[in-house]
Amino acid sequence: MEQERTQHHAGTVDAAAHSAARASASRPTLGNKVFSAEKLLLARMMESMGNPPLDLVLWDGQAIAGTNSPPIAQVLIRDRGALLKLIANPELGFGEMYVAERIEVQGNLVDCLEAIYRSMRASGHGQIAQKLLAPFSAAPRNTQPRARRNIHHHYDIGNDFYKLWLDRNMVYTCAYFPTPDMALEQAQAAKLDYVCRKLRLAPGEAVLEAGCGWGALALHMAKHYGVTVRAYNISTEQIAYARERALAEGLDGRVQFIEDDYRNVEGEFDAFVSVGMLEHVGIDQYQALGAVIDRSLKDGGRGLVHTIGRDRPSPMTPWIERNIFPGACPPSLSQMMQIFEPFGFSVLDVENLRLHYATTLEHWLARYEANTERVTQMFDPAFVRTWRLYLAGSLAAFRSGDMQLFQVCFNRSGENRIPWTRQYLYAP
Amino acid sequence: MEQERTQHHAGTVDAAAHSAARASASRPTLGNKVFSAEKLLLARMMESMGNPPLDLVLWDGQAIAGTNSPPIAQVLIRDRGALLKLIANPELGFGEMYVAERIEVQGNLVDCLEAIYRSMRASGHGQIAQKLLAPFSAAPRNTQPRARRNIHHHYDIGNDFYKLWLDRNMVYTCAYFPTPDMALEQAQAAKLDYVCRKLRLAPGEAVLEAGCGWGALALHMAKHYGVTVRAYNISTEQIAYARERALAEGLDGRVQFIEDDYRNVEGEFDAFVSVGMLEHVGIDQYQALGAVIDRSLKDGGRGLVHTIGRDRPSPMTPWIERNIFPGACPPSLSQMMQIFEPFGFSVLDVENLRLHYATTLEHWLARYEANTERVTQMFDPAFVRTWRLYLAGSLAAFRSGDMQLFQVCFNRSGENRIPWTRQYLYAP
Repeated sequence: MEQERTQHHAGTVDAAAHSAARASASRPTLGNKVFSAEKLLLARMMESMGNPPLDLVLWDGQAIAGTNSPPIAQVLIRDRGALLKLIANPELGFGEMYVAERIEVQGNLVDCLEAIYRSMRASGHGQIAQKLLAPFSAAPRNTQPRARRNIHHHYDIGNDFYKLWLDRNMVYTCAYFPTPDMALEQAQAAKLDYVCRKLRLAPGEAVLEAGCGWGALALHMAKHYGVTVRAYNISTEQIAYARERALAEGLDGRVQFIEDDYRNVEGEFDAFVSVGMLEHVGIDQYQALGAVIDRSLKDGGRGLVHTIGRDRPSPMTPWIERNIFPGACPPSLSQMMQIFEPFGFSVLDVENLRLHYATTLEHWLARYEANTERVTQMFDPAFVRTWRLYLAGSLAAFRSGDMQLFQVCFNRSGENRIPWTRQYLYAP
Repeated sequence: MEQERTQHHAGTVDAAAHSAARASASRPTLGNKVFSAEKLLLARMMESMGNPPLDLVLWDGQAIAGTNSPPIAQVLIRDRGALLKLIANPELGFGEMYVAERIEVQGNLVDCLEAIYRSMRASGHGQIAQKLLAPFSAAPRNTQPRARRNIHHHYDIGNDFYKLWLDRNMVYTCAYFPTPDMALEQAQAAKLDYVCRKLRLAPGEAVLEAGCGWGALALHMAKHYGVTVRAYNISTEQIAYARERALAEGLDGRVQFIEDDYRNVEGEFDAFVSVGMLEHVGIDQYQALGAVIDRSLKDGGRGLVHTIGRDRPSPMTPWIERNIFPGACPPSLSQMMQIFEPFGFSVLDVENLRLHYATTLEHWLARYEANTERVTQMFDPAFVRTWRLYLAGSLAAFRSGDMQLFQVCFNRSGENRIPWTRQYLYAP
């Protein structure tokens, strides 16, 4: 019954919102009347977010302006329920109501979200909460069974879906664009190569990869750098796909894909690499990861960790944590150091590739939007909107500086066979 | 009287030590007899240090071998007092007794110290102490008066002394050697340039320098990059020297040298730079430093901090803290992040130039050794040995990985006018 009423609202609101956008003065029914207390709360919410340059347009056509500057977009709030959810918990409510089509954005979604991120940071929004939360993990501890459920939730929704918008090698991490206009396919290949060069791989060496996705890096290392690879992943679909590729490319003798948790790694290796897994590990497991690296690396061993990060310790955006990446938390650099410092690893190089992730996401989002019809057939409209908001929100987060992308290179302490300068990374 | 006796010992021990080195069996007098308990304690001390490949030779000619492998050097302990000081507090006692000529090293001093550093790390020596100490500052808080005393102690001992072994521009920080065989003069110039390029200085910009030494970087920036510089330092002698140079080079209109604490900085700047000051700041003052940077940097501002560091939080070597750098503590990266994370700065690039500092110190030590006669005239033999041990020990620390050299580049969060890649740093 409640749902029916909402549906009804959504129906009438559709028209109302559109007329609102046209600044029409269509009169709402009495039950839909916006109370002045609601407008006050909404204005307060906008103020607490630093008054982003947006217009909030209510179902009765009334608008609340964020600032005096020209609005970047209009956010249409289509019913009272959506309004209340938004006020009660803006970060969670916006996503939920957007997916339910009870909040719409008229204008560029990415620009709208970037304006919100920038405005919230400028106003210091969330800093007190972040300080309080910093010592704690935002999510419950990622035990092995929980980690498996978390990873299954995101990565096992069907390889065909990811094929719609990733590059042909299925690399689902930040690409490296030597120039910003490079095509995505090339930039992902350039990233794989950049990682290999940073690792200084030599033929015959043994490499451990933790969190290998669909296997692109492992296969690239074996094929182009002559190493053997043991690659771990707990996503069933990704491992199956990676194994097939290894067979098809005749690399199954040199690349072993293992469906298991990084904490169960066995063996000794010349190099350790992890691209895009750390986000899922959880800050409270960093020492455990450091211990795994410590027991797996030979003397003279070296490593690279590539991860989404933050400028300061912050919990994951709650809507993303709930709907997209359960258990995930991108670390700040001080948090990341918990992997290395207790074991005396020596950090040689940290590079922040934030803008490269923004560009990567521009490609993904464009490809995704070009394929929403097929996504709708595979899933449903709510799924289409969930993933649109996730990709657009991630792009906005990297553009606005809310998220970072760190590549950290390290060696065992006191190892002097390290690059003299970084010049070799940039040699033709 | 006590001193006289020691002198006497030193005299007789000289011969004894040399004969010990030749494995002579000259009989000691009864009062000088080495007790077996003393040998046991010495063996235990060696064990706690991971049994470095050294022979300890006592005044009676008896030797205690660190390991079965061929010894890198012989450490001659010339009297009972030196032995007891060494056992009671190896890190402090070694330095004190070396300076007093009651401990001698036969063989290469740097290699000997490197072997000790490596052995101690391999054995995990000091890790428990480090963990306990990590949350605390090793030294008392560096208030402004204390900071002034600390800096005076090291940097105001006479510019003529530093001229004996630094490069002609008086740069007393790690050089940058594009190739390891570059001359020191060139490598220091290359470092100044590398820092300017990392800062992306543009003509007309205003730069804040915290801890400017004898002014080489400030003058280089103004001369070659067309910026204006406000440079702070609390060393009276360094500031006086820097001002003279600015006048002589006609740069006094564009470079202002201010004898004041970094905490009293005033003004707004496009760039912040600090090369070799952070070591003296003290971990508990990092947030204060971050606040200074935060209030001094314009929107779009950027910065670079260059500092000696550690792979993990560790107090300063006690002999160095007491005799060379009172109040100093090189940070680990997680500690360094206390400057940046609370203020939402975004770390773009971290480079570890540890081996470049080892090479820099090779040059300094060689120049120093070539000038010890003049140093003896200026000071006294104990001073000569103090500085020899400090330079040799620092070289050993960088070679062995006990010390790191971090260059950290940062921007305000969300600033998108940042280098797309690091390629430009390596362009001809």
